[in-house]
Amino acid sequence: MLSFENDYSEGAHPAILQRFVETNLEQVPGYGSDPYCDSAKEKIRAACNCPDAEIFFLVGGTQTNAVVIDSMLQAYEGVVSAQTGHVNAHEAGAIEYTGHKVLAIPQYDGKMKASDLEAYLKTFWQDESHEHMVFPGMVYISHPTEYGTLYTKQELTDLSAICRRYEIPLYLDGARLGYGLMSKHTDVTLPDIAELCDVFYIGGTKVGALCGEALVFTKHNMPKYFVTHVKQHGALLAKGRLAGVQFDTLFTDNLYFEISKHAIEMAELLKQGFAEKGYQFHLDSPTNQQFIVLDDAKYNELQKQVRCCFWEKPDDTHTVVRFATSWATPKENIDELMKLL
Amino acid sequence: MLSFENDYSEGAHPAILQRFVETNLEQVPGYGSDPYCDSAKEKIRAACNCPDAEIFFLVGGTQTNAVVIDSMLQAYEGVVSAQTGHVNAHEAGAIEYTGHKVLAIPQYDGKMKASDLEAYLKTFWQDESHEHMVFPGMVYISHPTEYGTLYTKQELTDLSAICRRYEIPLYLDGARLGYGLMSKHTDVTLPDIAELCDVFYIGGTKVGALCGEALVFTKHNMPKYFVTHVKQHGALLAKGRLAGVQFDTLFTDNLYFEISKHAIEMAELLKQGFAEKGYQFHLDSPTNQQFIVLDDAKYNELQKQVRCCFWEKPDDTHTVVRFATSWATPKENIDELMKLL
Amino acid sequence: MLSFENDYSEGAHPAILQRFVETNLEQVPGYGSDPYCDSAKEKIRAACNCPDAEIFFLVGGTQTNAVVIDSMLQAYEGVVSAQTGHVNAHEAGAIEYTGHKVLAIPQYDGKMKASDLEAYLKTFWQDESHEHMVFPGMVYISHPTEYGTLYTKQELTDLSAICRRYEIPLYLDGARLGYGLMSKHTDVTLPDIAELCDVFYIGGTKVGALCGEALVFTKHNMPKYFVTHVKQHGALLAKGRLAGVQFDTLFTDNLYFEISKHAIEMAELLKQGFAEKGYQFHLDSPTNQQFIVLDDAKYNELQKQVRCCFWEKPDDTHTVVRFATSWATPKENIDELMKLL
Amino acid sequence: MLSFENDYSEGAHPAILQRFVETNLEQVPGYGSDPYCDSAKEKIRAACNCPDAEIFFLVGGTQTNAVVIDSMLQAYEGVVSAQTGHVNAHEAGAIEYTGHKVLAIPQYDGKMKASDLEAYLKTFWQDESHEHMVFPGMVYISHPTEYGTLYTKQELTDLSAICRRYEIPLYLDGARLGYGLMSKHTDVTLPDIAELCDVFYIGGTKVGALCGEALVFTKHNMPKYFVTHVKQHGALLAKGRLAGVQFDTLFTDNLYFEISKHAIEMAELLKQGFAEKGYQFHLDSPTNQQFIVLDDAKYNELQKQVRCCFWEKPDDTHTVVRFATSWATPKENIDELMKLL
Repeated sequence: MLSFENDYSEGAHPAILQRFVETNLEQVPGYGSDPYCDSAKEKIRAACNCPDAEIFFLVGGTQTNAVVIDSMLQAYEGVVSAQTGHVNAHEAGAIEYTGHKVLAIPQYDGKMKASDLEAYLKTFWQDESHEHMVFPGMVYISHPTEYGTLYTKQELTDLSAICRRYEIPLYLDGARLGYGLMSKHTDVTLPDIAELCDVFYIGGTKVGALCGEALVFTKHNMPKYFVTHVKQHGALLAKGRLAGVQFDTLFTDNLYFEISKHAIEMAELLKQGFAEKGYQFHLDSPTNQQFIVLDDAKYNELQKQVRCCFWEKPDDTHTVVRFATSWATPKENIDELMKLL
Repeated sequence: MLSFENDYSEGAHPAILQRFVETNLEQVPGYGSDPYCDSAKEKIRAACNCPDAEIFFLVGGTQTNAVVIDSMLQAYEGVVSAQTGHVNAHEAGAIEYTGHKVLAIPQYDGKMKASDLEAYLKTFWQDESHEHMVFPGMVYISHPTEYGTLYTKQELTDLSAICRRYEIPLYLDGARLGYGLMSKHTDVTLPDIAELCDVFYIGGTKVGALCGEALVFTKHNMPKYFVTHVKQHGALLAKGRLAGVQFDTLFTDNLYFEISKHAIEMAELLKQGFAEKGYQFHLDSPTNQQFIVLDDAKYNELQKQVRCCFWEKPDDTHTVVRFATSWATPKENIDELMKLL
Repeated sequence: MLSFENDYSEGAHPAILQRFVETNLEQVPGYGSDPYCDSAKEKIRAACNCPDAEIFFLVGGTQTNAVVIDSMLQAYEGVVSAQTGHVNAHEAGAIEYTGHKVLAIPQYDGKMKASDLEAYLKTFWQDESHEHMVFPGMVYISHPTEYGTLYTKQELTDLSAICRRYEIPLYLDGARLGYGLMSKHTDVTLPDIAELCDVFYIGGTKVGALCGEALVFTKHNMPKYFVTHVKQHGALLAKGRLAGVQFDTLFTDNLYFEISKHAIEMAELLKQGFAEKGYQFHLDSPTNQQFIVLDDAKYNELQKQVRCCFWEKPDDTHTVVRFATSWATPKENIDELMKLL
Repeated sequence: MLSFENDYSEGAHPAILQRFVETNLEQVPGYGSDPYCDSAKEKIRAACNCPDAEIFFLVGGTQTNAVVIDSMLQAYEGVVSAQTGHVNAHEAGAIEYTGHKVLAIPQYDGKMKASDLEAYLKTFWQDESHEHMVFPGMVYISHPTEYGTLYTKQELTDLSAICRRYEIPLYLDGARLGYGLMSKHTDVTLPDIAELCDVFYIGGTKVGALCGEALVFTKHNMPKYFVTHVKQHGALLAKGRLAGVQFDTLFTDNLYFEISKHAIEMAELLKQGFAEKGYQFHLDSPTNQQFIVLDDAKYNELQKQVRCCFWEKPDDTHTVVRFATSWATPKENIDELMKLL
C-alpha cells in the first residue's frame, strides 16, 4: 500500500546505518562525549557559520522543546507561541508539565505575526497588574510550521528584533528544518537562522535519522549544567553515539541538504500533479507537507490504496488531507499516486 | 586502550544492525504501533510466561523510572527505595522533578531488606500524623543493583508479599536484567520476576541495544492513556521501530540471554583472575560489574593502559574501582588485563 | 480619598472580629478539625441544601483553584476555561505550575457558551490523534465572572449536562459568589449551584472575611487524602479556626447573604447614578463590579479624588474603569461619588 | 481539659485582635502594599539590625519553605537538610512537589553538624559524575529544631562559613523563632541570625499570630519578581493587612519577645516539675517543647485529663510525649498539670 502518511515512516538514510555498522565495536565514552558527537558538532557549527555554537543532541522533538523551554525560562515565565504551535497543540501538555504556560497568540497559516507579538509584549508590560500574570519569557516558532509554511527572512528578522528589544530568546523548532531550507520558495539559510535565533534545533527524526534532534545555542547561552537539566528530564542518552553517528553522517557531504532537497522535489511533483487535476489546496505550502481538500467520496475511495493523514473537516462533505513526502519517497510512488487520482 | 569502564561503550549487537538494514525502507506506522513492536511484545510476553503483560518501549533508564513512578503514583505518594537506588542517587533528581519524593531506607550491598521495608510501612501507617507525610505508594528495587548484587527468589517473594499486603506495586528496575538472569548465582527467572513484580523493565541499553528499555506491566495495571503520559514526559518515539526492531531481535532465538551469558562468563574470568592475584573485592558481585579495591599506586599505574570506573575512596591510600564486562567484551581483553595486573 | 478600587480594601465584617475575640483563648485542635470548622460546614451544607457535601476551607482563590484542579485531574488532563477565566489570565501561571494546561475557549462578557464547550469536547474526542493532546478533564467557570456577569440557571444547566455526558466535573469559582446570588438579575440559587456543579467554592475574602474560601464537593467526590493534597500545596492552615470562625459567622443568621445584598444595592445606586449622568457602560454587569467608559480627561480628573481600577483602553481617548462596591461600602460614598461626577 | 498538645491551640494575642478592630474599616491597598505591612517591615528590619532586609509576609510554614526553596534554587539543585528537618519529614512532600530533592544528612537531636555538611558538599563536588546527581544548592536548618533544640552561635557561624565557601544560601526556618531567641540557654540573637543566614523566617503562627510568617532576605537576595513566585504558589494574600497588622503589632513594644519569654518561663517550670518528680527527658530541650518519656500506664492515665502530643515509642512499654507551652499558657495550667502527675 502506497503511503504518504507522514515523514517518519521509514528507518534511516542507508548511509547512517552503514556508519553504525562501521563504528559499532569501537569503545567510546557515554553521555555525548564521544568523538562522533564532537565531529558532528563541528560540522554543524560550520554549516551554521556559527563557530561558537553550543550543541546538544536529544532524542525527539517534544522532549527537545520541553528541555529548552524549561531550562531557559524563569519559573514565572511562559513561552509565546502561535495558537497552532506544536508546543501548544500537540505535545500532550509536555510544556505545562514543566510548569510553564504556553501563551497562545493568533496564527496565520501556522505563523505568528510580528505585529501581534509586539502588541502582546507591549500590552503585558503596560498592564499594571502584570506581576499577577505569566511573564512572556521566550518566543517559540516552528519553521516549517505545522502547516508546512515558512517565515521569510524579513519576517524572521522582525521577530528577532522584537525579541532582542524585549530581551527574550527567540526559539525555532526545526523538526522539519531541512525541508524548509531546501524549499524552492525560501530566502532563509541555516546561517540566517543561527544569526537571528537564540536557540533552535535541526530535526533529524523527520529528515533521515532513526531519531535525534541537534539543539543549537547560538549566543553562548546554553543553560549552565545543561547536561544535568537534560538528565533530570530523562533525556540523556547513555550511548550518545546513537545521535553523534547519525548527525555526523547527515552533515557529511551535505547529506542532510541533499535528502531534504529530494523530498522537496517529490513534493513539488505531487503538488503539480494535484493542481493539474484540479484539486483544491487548503493552503499554499512550500515544503514537504501538502494539504489537499478532497470530497469525502474521493477520500474514502483513495484510502483503499493510499495512506494519508486526516487533517480536518472544513465542511460536511469535504476533508482536508495531508500528503507528506520525505527523504525516502521514491518518484515511482508519486507517479503511482497520480495514476490513482 | 583497554576499557572496562562500563557496559555501554560499544554500539549494538550486530544482529540488531543487520535487522535495521533489512527492514529499513518498509513504511510502518509511528509511535510504537508498528509490526516490529508488536512482534517484540509477543516474544517478551512468552519469555515472561505472562501472556497478558502490557508492554511499552522507552529510550532510557532514568526516563523509564520517571514515567513509571509518576504515572503509577498518586500526587501524595512517594516511592520507597534503598538509599543507593539509582532513582535516589544518580538520576539528577528526575523523580523529584515529577513531584514525588524518594523515600530512602537502608541498603545492604545495594539491596533493601524486607524487614526494613515492612517496618517503614508499618510505622508510617501507625503514625497519627501520617497525612502530613509522604505516603509510601510504590517500592523500587534494582536487580541487579547498582552494586551488581542480586535478590534471591525468597527475598523477592518477601518484598512482593509486603507490597501486596500494603496494596502498593513492586517495581523492578532491570537496567542490567540480562546480566542478573544469567548470573551463575541466582535462582530468579524472568517468569519469577513477572509473577512477583507488578511492573519492571528489561534493560536494552546496557545489554546489547543502541538504546531502549522494555517496560512490562504484569497485572493489567498499565496506567490509562499511558501513551499520553509518555508523550507528556517527552518520551514517545516517533519511529517506534527503533525500539521494536531492537527488542524483536534481542528476543529472537534467545539472543538477549545468550549475550548476557557471555558477559557473565567474562566477568567470572575477570573475577577469578583478580582473586588469583590476591586482589580484594569491595563486595561479592555475582554479575557483570566487579568492584575491586586497588591501592592508589596500582590504580594510577593501571589507568595508563586500562579504562575502568572510579567508584569510591574507602580510605586515603586505596580506591574502589568498577570493572564492567558486557555482551561485547572479547575474551582477549580479559587475558590482556590479566597480563597487566 | 474615596475608593471603589476593589472589594477587598477593608478588613472583615465586624461580627467576625467580635467572634474572634470571644473565642480567642479556647484551645482547639488544629488543621481544620476544630468545632468552628465543623459548625461552619454544617451551616454551609444547610444553605446549599446538600446534606452530604464535603467541605474544606482554604485561604485564597488562586490557591483554591490550584488545589482543586490539581487534585481532581489526571496528569494527562487540563481544565477548560473561557479565555478570560481567572485561572487562564490572572493567576501567574499557578495552574500550569501544577502541571496542567488551561484549555482556553472563547468568552462572551466573561462567560463560556455551552455550544462552544460541546464543540470543543466533541472535536477533541473525534480527533484521531487526541492521545497526543491534553485531555479536557474539567470545566472551570467563574460566577460572577471576571466581568461581573452571571450565568442563568438554564446556562448552568446546559454546561452541567455537557459535563455529565462527558463525565468530567464542572467547577465553579465563586470568589464573589455572594454578590452573584444577591444580584437582582439572577435566577440561580446556592442550592442550584450545589446541584449543578460538582465542586465550587464560596468566596470569603471578597465577601466580608479577612481571608478564606469554602470549598464544597457536592457529589461525594472529594479526592482521597485531600488534606495531604492541601498540605503538599502549602495550603493547610495550622489554626484552622481562622477560617472556621469566619465562615461560621458568615453563615449564621444569613450574614453572608445580607452583606452581599448590601453591596448589590450600593452597586445598583452607583449604576443608576452613572446612567442618569449619561455615562456609557462597557458591558451590563448585574453584580458589584461596574465597568464604565470614561473619556481620559474625566478619568484623570476623577483620579485625584477617587480610587478606581483601570481595566482597559478601548481606544486612544477613553478608558474602561472598574468601580467595585462591597459589603463595606457606605451609602455616603456613593452619594459623594455622584457629586464628583 | 488541660492541653499542652501544641503551640497553636489558641487564637492570637489579644493585642492583635484589638488592632484588627481598630483598623478594620480603613481602606488599604491589597497584596502586601498597605501601610501596616510597610510599618511591620520597618520594625522587623530594626529588630534584625538589618536596615536593607527585604521582607515578605506569607501565611504558613510549609508554604514559606516551598516558596523560598523553589524560588531560590536552580532546577538542578536540591536543599540539604537534617534527616529530621520539617521539609524532609512533615510537609507531605511539598518541597518535592516543587521539583526539588531534599538531600538528607544525619541529625543529632534535630541538628545538623557542620562537619557532616562540609563532607557532603566536598564529596559531591569531588564526584566525577556529580552532573548526574542533584546539586546541593541551599542549606535548610530549623531553629529551634523539630526537637526544640538550638544551634549555638558558633555552630551557626560554622554552617554559615561553609555555605559562603560553597556559595549557597543558608536558610533558617524559624517557625518557633521567638521561643529560640528567648531561651535561657542560647547565645544567638535576632541580629546574629540576620547576619549569618541568607534568608530566614520569623514564625508568627506558633508565636502569637492567627497565621503568618515574616520571610526575611538579608543579602539583597530576594528573587526577582518574588510577588509573582508567591502568586504562582497560590500564596499571595489579597488582604495583605491580615499579615501586616499582626506583625506590626508583634514587633511593637517587643511584644513578640515578651510573649515568647512567657512561653519559655512556663516551659522551664514544666521542665523543673517533671524533673523534680523524677521523670526522664527524651532529650534536653531549651525551648517551649519538652519531650518526656512516660511509661505507658502513666501515659494512658494522663490522657484522660491532659492533651499532649504522641511523639514516638522508644520501646514496648514507654512512650515519648511532647508537652508544648506557648505565649498563651497560663501558669495555672502548669500548676494543675503538676498536681496530676
